[in-house]
Order: sequence, then structure tokens, then C-alpha cells
Amino acid sequence: MHQPQVSSRADLAQTAATLLERLRTRGPRIHCITNAVAQNFTANVLLAAGCVPSMTLSSEEIGAFVANTDALLVNLGTFDRERREATEIAVEIAGQEDVPWVLDPVFVDRAPPRAEFARTLIARLPTAVRLNRSEFAALAGTETSREATMAAAGANGITIALSGETDLVTDGKRTADIANGHPMMARVTAMGCAGSALVAACLAVEDDAFCAAAAALLMIGVAGELAAERSAGPGSFAAAILDTLYSLDGHALAARAKVS
Amino acid sequence: MHQPQVSSRADLAQTAATLLERLRTRGPRIHCITNAVAQNFTANVLLAAGCVPSMTLSSEEIGAFVANTDALLVNLGTFDRERREATEIAVEIAGQEDVPWVLDPVFVDRAPPRAEFARTLIARLPTAVRLNRSEFAALAGTETSREATMAAAGANGITIALSGETDLVTDGKRTADIANGHPMMARVTAMGCAGSALVAACLAVEDDAFCAAAAALLMIGVAGELAAERSAGPGSFAAAILDTLYSLDGHALAARAKVS
Amino acid sequence: MHQPQVSSRADLAQTAATLLERLRTRGPRIHCITNAVAQNFTANVLLAAGCVPSMTLSSEEIGAFVANTDALLVNLGTFDRERREATEIAVEIAGQEDVPWVLDPVFVDRAPPRAEFARTLIARLPTAVRLNRSEFAALAGTETSREATMAAAGANGITIALSGETDLVTDGKRTADIANGHPMMARVTAMGCAGSALVAACLAVEDDAFCAAAAALLMIGVAGELAAERSAGPGSFAAAILDTLYSLDGHALAARAKVS
Repeated sequence: MHQPQVSSRADLAQTAATLLERLRTRGPRIHCITNAVAQNFTANVLLAAGCVPSMTLSSEEIGAFVANTDALLVNLGTFDRERREATEIAVEIAGQEDVPWVLDPVFVDRAPPRAEFARTLIARLPTAVRLNRSEFAALAGTETSREATMAAAGANGITIALSGETDLVTDGKRTADIANGHPMMARVTAMGCAGSALVAACLAVEDDAFCAAAAALLMIGVAGELAAERSAGPGSFAAAILDTLYSLDGHALAARAKVS
Repeated sequence: MHQPQVSSRADLAQTAATLLERLRTRGPRIHCITNAVAQNFTANVLLAAGCVPSMTLSSEEIGAFVANTDALLVNLGTFDRERREATEIAVEIAGQEDVPWVLDPVFVDRAPPRAEFARTLIARLPTAVRLNRSEFAALAGTETSREATMAAAGANGITIALSGETDLVTDGKRTADIANGHPMMARVTAMGCAGSALVAACLAVEDDAFCAAAAALLMIGVAGELAAERSAGPGSFAAAILDTLYSLDGHALAARAKVS
Repeated sequence: MHQPQVSSRADLAQTAATLLERLRTRGPRIHCITNAVAQNFTANVLLAAGCVPSMTLSSEEIGAFVANTDALLVNLGTFDRERREATEIAVEIAGQEDVPWVLDPVFVDRAPPRAEFARTLIARLPTAVRLNRSEFAALAGTETSREATMAAAGANGITIALSGETDLVTDGKRTADIANGHPMMARVTAMGCAGSALVAACLAVEDDAFCAAAAALLMIGVAGELAAERSAGPGSFAAAILDTLYSLDGHALAARAKVS
């Protein structure tokens, strides 16, 4: 029953290179319900990776957008009425149309109403959830640990990507620990949100959610390392990571992947 | 009756240089109702060109802003309730005060309610409409062609700027085909929206809408070519096009214009 | 009774260096109610300075965010219903919890309803107000002058930071004239808004509002000068000022401060 650890260093670098190629040749549509701070950078990350992003929130038309998208991102970074309405509709349509979707429950550790809304969304079974340790603890009501994360993924049948110094991706059975990335990524807003968007992008071109999520985090982590080497601070870094993601290739992925 | 083809290469480059000079010396106010993804970049494009942008959407005050602006941009990229209300008021005031305005019916090919709203706006006769081939087809209900575009412009008495690999600008009688630009422009979000904002800017300093629209598209196209030469990917390109637009001059316009 | 002019060149440069160090080591939370155009750049300025920004506007949760923030920014750049509701709650909680807050009454000279709303906020005694000469005149109903600014600050017990070619900071008794900065700062959107956010950041780590506001304006002014020297136009400048703010130190502040 147990699937192998497909996440060896070489395997995952190869998977990421393959998915990047698919993104660039297929140009999937990714619809994003994301916070106002992150919208521009998220769109640019998706464009740099080869996707066609859309961002509308209007309840009259979001159904039409989601029905024709290849993946959906739901980010709770700004938790206004309009976005909650849009999310209800979008998640409903995504379920009907079998559109894979990612939940990024930003800052659920900072406000109880947001955590409650996030829990109702998780009950509707996103394909993947990407969050940090504090956000996990706030939602799970337990300490964040490797075991708790695997249990939560397994119990719900979803892939969880837990970000941190080392990212942990798990579907409850398989795990990948990805130690790529750079501290400068925490000095630019919306970097995590953009990572979640990249998870959605990979889900659009790969049915195995675990592989898609792990590949996406590897891509953004390696792109971040390359960008840090060519930038003088967070402003030039934010531009450089779009450049490095745009030109990222299997060679750099294989050479730099720190996966276990 | 027929006006000459003012759009010869040398003519249009000269017109663009003149309008750029006017923008920099007059600093016209440009009010933008645009989507949340595009607001920041649009404001920066307008500032780089010498304008003073404003972006408020509040129905209580948009009338005051539009009454005192030199041109108005209406972009449908995020089609929320607030923006539709703001648009109704803004277009009304623009008509009363003779403020030129540009419609950018983003993604009308993706959602019927948006197309319907765009049609009601076109009936109120924007000075110019900027859109791509799919958007034109969705609004016109016909195949997009040179003839259909000229006919739509002539019938409504508006200038249409149809973007594509070669942009076509027409007022129904005159046409300009502008083959400037760079593929990297499609890898940065809001580039088209910013082009529409530049059309609004040129309308603020030039009464001939055909000349204004063609000059604006030439400016952004040449700025894009120059930016591509000095950037390493879409992130550095997005910064570089603001730099090249800021320092664009008649020499570069004349040397690079591909107009027929 | 009279406090000394703490704002001599050396004093203020030293204060700014100290506050910058505090920001980087303490990482204060800064909650921002700011306009959609400025959100991303403001968040990046705060991150570059070492802070943790949050931006939510939802009336259900803004109370929880403000109760746990170290300072609050209220910027009126987009004056929509949601932001006004959020502002009412946020200012109430800030008062209860003794959270310092900054008001940036953007464009109050352009629309009467906005000026009226700004006046009700000033009556609730922000810790500091940052605005330009036209905005001051619109709110005060008088010509903008050094004396009128000092009188307004003294009468309300608030610190006023009046931006212009030379910035004037005053609490009614003390004054600092800061002649740093660069014209390119006016060619990038949200630069003033980001300056106000930096005032909020400094208030989070320094109780003397006059010193905090003056130090913040010195920081952004010097960062702007350094950025202008390494950029080719407004696009590269916007990235560079994040880089220079990130690496700003006491040496550069002392060498460049133009304070009297």
C-alpha cells in the first residue's frame, strides 16, 4: 500500500523540471482569490512561470472564471466580505468541475474569525493547504509537529505544505523535506502567497498533489537562492526572483535541491 | 473629407515626442478606475511619463476627482460592485465636463456579465477603447478583422486601439499599424492596463484621439524594446520599462518606430 | 519648560540609527489601513526596515489585529466604505490600548468628503499626522506656514510632519527641518505613504513622537538619496530604495543628514 518516497533529491528536481516545462508549454489558467497586498506580485510570479493568472472577485462572474480555470488559489490574507462571498462560490464550482485548489490560511493565528472561516474551507477538502507553523497550530489546536502534520493530511486526504526554515510536504503517507530558500524571502511581502500560487500552478499540470506541491516549493526555493546571489537587498531581490523563476531549469534544480 | 494617413513612421514618432514633452511639462491629472492588480504599476507608469495619477473609487468623492481630472481611464479588470458604481458616476461626470476617457474592457471574453457591462459603457461613447482581439470578438459578436474594427470605430465615432503582435489604431477613417513592443511585455501583469492609462494620458494633452492613442502605443512599445535590452527577465523588465519610459526621447522614437 | 532642539544634525542622525537598530532587533508589528495602490510598496518598506506589517481591513477582525499591533497607520488614499468602517474601529481600539497611530490624509485637498472625514480623525488625536502643504491648507483652512503648523501641532498636542522640499516636523514646541530626499521620490507612487508607515514604525519603538517622526523622515530621505545614486529611473529607484533602507546605517545617516 505504501508509496515510495518519490521525494529523493534527484526525483524531485526532475519532477520540478518536468512540471516547469509543462507550465511553459501549456500556459494553464490560474484563478486567484488573494489579498490586495499580494495580487500584483502573485500575478507576476505566475506569469514568470508561464501561467495565465486571473484575479477577479466579483460574485457575478467568479463562477465563470473558476469553471474555466485549471487551478484555483484561495488566500485569506485580506479577509473582507467580498472575498468571502467569492470564495464560497469559487470553492463550490471548483468541487463541481473538479478544479484542484489550494488554501493559504494567512494569519489565522492572529484573528479567531479568520481561523473559523479557514476551518469551514478545510472541511470542503482543498487539494492542498500551504501554511506556516503558527497557522497550523491555530487551526489544529495542537502543537505543530511532523506527526501532527502527517496525521492532519492523512485524516483529511489532503496534501499539506508546512513552510519554515525547512519546508515539510506530506499527504499523510509520503513526506518531502525541502531545505531550499533564502532568508531574504521573508523580507519581501507576498512571497509565501506567491509560493502558494505556484502550488496551484503545479496542480494544474500534475494530478499527484504531493508531487505538485513539493515541486512548487522546490522551484520557489531554488529561484530564491539564485535571486539572492544577484541582488543587493529586498527590492532588487523581489525583481530578481521573477527573473530567476522565468529562466529556472533542470540543471539548477538538480544542482541545488536539498531534499530528504 | 478623408484625412491623410498622419501615421507615417516619421509623423507618428514626432507626434509621440511632442506629446511626451507636453506630459512632462504640463503634468496632467489622470484619474484611473482600474483593477487592484494593476493600480500600483499603472500609477508608476503615469508618474514615469510625467502625469499625476489618482485612483480613488469611493462613490462619494469620485465625482469631485473626475470633474478636476484631465482624462479618465475605466479598466474592467476587477469587476466588483464598488468599481461599477464608481464607473457610472465617473462616466456621467466625464460626459458633462468633456473629460476624455478610455475604456479597457479586460477579459470580457471570459465572463458574460462583464461583456454586458462593457457594452453599456461603449454606448456612452468613450473617446477611445483599447482591447485585444478576443475581447473585440466578444463585444462585437463577429470575428476580429481590420474591416470590422474600422467599422466599429466609424459607426460609434470612437478611436479603437486593437492590441496584438502589431497594434492597429483606427478612428474608422485613419489607421496606424504599430509593430513595436517586445514579447516580455506579456510576461508582466498590468502591462496592457498601463498602456491604456498612457492612452488616457495622451488624450489629456491632445484633442485628436487617433493621434493620441497611436502615440501612446508607440511610446510604450518603444519603451518595452529598450527595457528588454537591459533586463534579465520579467522582474527586472518591469522596473526597466519605467526607467526607459521616464527617459524616452524623440531620437529613440524616431529610430525605432515601426509604423505603417 | 522648553525642551531643547534635539534635532541638531548629529542628534537626529544618532536617534535615527538607534531607532533603526530597534526596528531590526524587535521586529514590531505595524498594522496599516492604507490605500490599494500603496499596500504592496508599504509592506515592503516596513519589511525592509525590519517590521512585520499587516494590512487587513475586515471589520470583523481588525480589532484583534490592532489590539496586538505596536503601531497603526491610517492612510486615506482610497476612501472607500470598507476602509472608513475599519478606521473607526481601529482608531477606537488604538485609543483603548494606547497604540500610537499616524494619520496620512492623502488628497484631502481634492475632495470635501475626505477632508471632513480627516477632521473627525484629527479630533481623535493621532500621535502624528503626515501631510503636504496643500493637504495642510485644506484641513486647517489657512495658508500653510511654519507658524500655522506649529500652532496646529501645539493646540492638538500632536506631532505634525509637513512634507515638502524641506520637511518640517514639529510638536508645537520643538522643530526639525529635514532637507534630505531626492526628486525621484515624487516619481514613484506611494513613496509618501511609505514614509508615513515608517513614522508609524518609529512610534512603535520610541515614545517621543517628535523624535520618532523626525527620525523616520530622515531615514527615508537618506535612503532616497542613496537609491538615486544607483538607479537609472523611477523603476530601478523603487527597488533600490528598499535595498538602501534595508542596509541603511548610522554612518550614512550621520554623513548625509541635512537637519536644522
